[in-house]
Amino acid sequence: MDPDEAWARVRSARVARMATVTPSNRPHVIPFVFALFERDPDRVVYWVVDRKPKRSRDLKRIRNLLENPAVEFVVDGYDEDWTRLWWVRCSGTARVVDDARERHEALHALQEKYKQYRDTPEDGPVVAVDIATIDGWAARAPRSPRPSAAPPA
Amino acid sequence: MDPDEAWARVRSARVARMATVTPSNRPHVIPFVFALFERDPDRVVYWVVDRKPKRSRDLKRIRNLLENPAVEFVVDGYDEDWTRLWWVRCSGTARVVDDARERHEALHALQEKYKQYRDTPEDGPVVAVDIATIDGWAARAPRSPRPSAAPPA
Repeated sequence: MDPDEAWARVRSARVARMATVTPSNRPHVIPFVFALFERDPDRVVYWVVDRKPKRSRDLKRIRNLLENPAVEFVVDGYDEDWTRLWWVRCSGTARVVDDARERHEALHALQEKYKQYRDTPEDGPVVAVDIATIDGWAARAPRSPRPSAAPPA
Repeated sequence: MDPDEAWARVRSARVARMATVTPSNRPHVIPFVFALFERDPDRVVYWVVDRKPKRSRDLKRIRNLLENPAVEFVVDGYDEDWTRLWWVRCSGTARVVDDARERHEALHALQEKYKQYRDTPEDGPVVAVDIATIDGWAARAPRSPRPSAAPPA
């Protein structure tokens, strides 16, 4: 998958799943919603820690992140037609956003993407993932014109 | 979420995302299809490495797994109505299935669940994840009768 197509799929994905490494070297994975911020050549994904449920667990997650900030996340499309399967994977480094302006921009980007955040603005910590690499795969090439094929006899 | 409900959601999920830790202590995450095998009290998830694409990468993934066999995977439901969000997370230990009978049962379970595997049987390595813990969350309690609520004024 070419990089433009891979970024387009990250940009439009409504949910992704993020893996981190705990202090005891175990993998940890969560679904999360995010906004992709693109300031060429930098690409940053922002997510905000929910203020409502499980506050102590969320803070633990952030402490873990600061101890080993390596992050990988994946967006993918599942379809019962396995010729339509695809995924895009990004790896990068997480940090808690301290800068007030960057935090404002991140929350704005999240509210632009998710009306759910417009109804109930978040006040939890914002985490940025500075993306270093992107990699994508599709069972068949996206958008490419395919030769018309007769159904199997 | 109670354990029975959590297991039911793992059982019926068509896809999950699995996190592992690489030899350089970085997180790695992939979407995968799987079958849950239940022999009380043991629960094992099986997946089979695709034979077709990216064989060398897949073998690398297995080597990584054997070096640090800790695995966590998540199944989840995304919905634009965020009161319907949920996830179930399992952590466990991965191993390559060497026993011929276990391999046969695993491939059978995968073919029962996915007709796609009936059309084109897999011949790659089968990986088992012996599940140690399960944890689930739903934005609202599943299936529980809710008091009827008037819409906000």
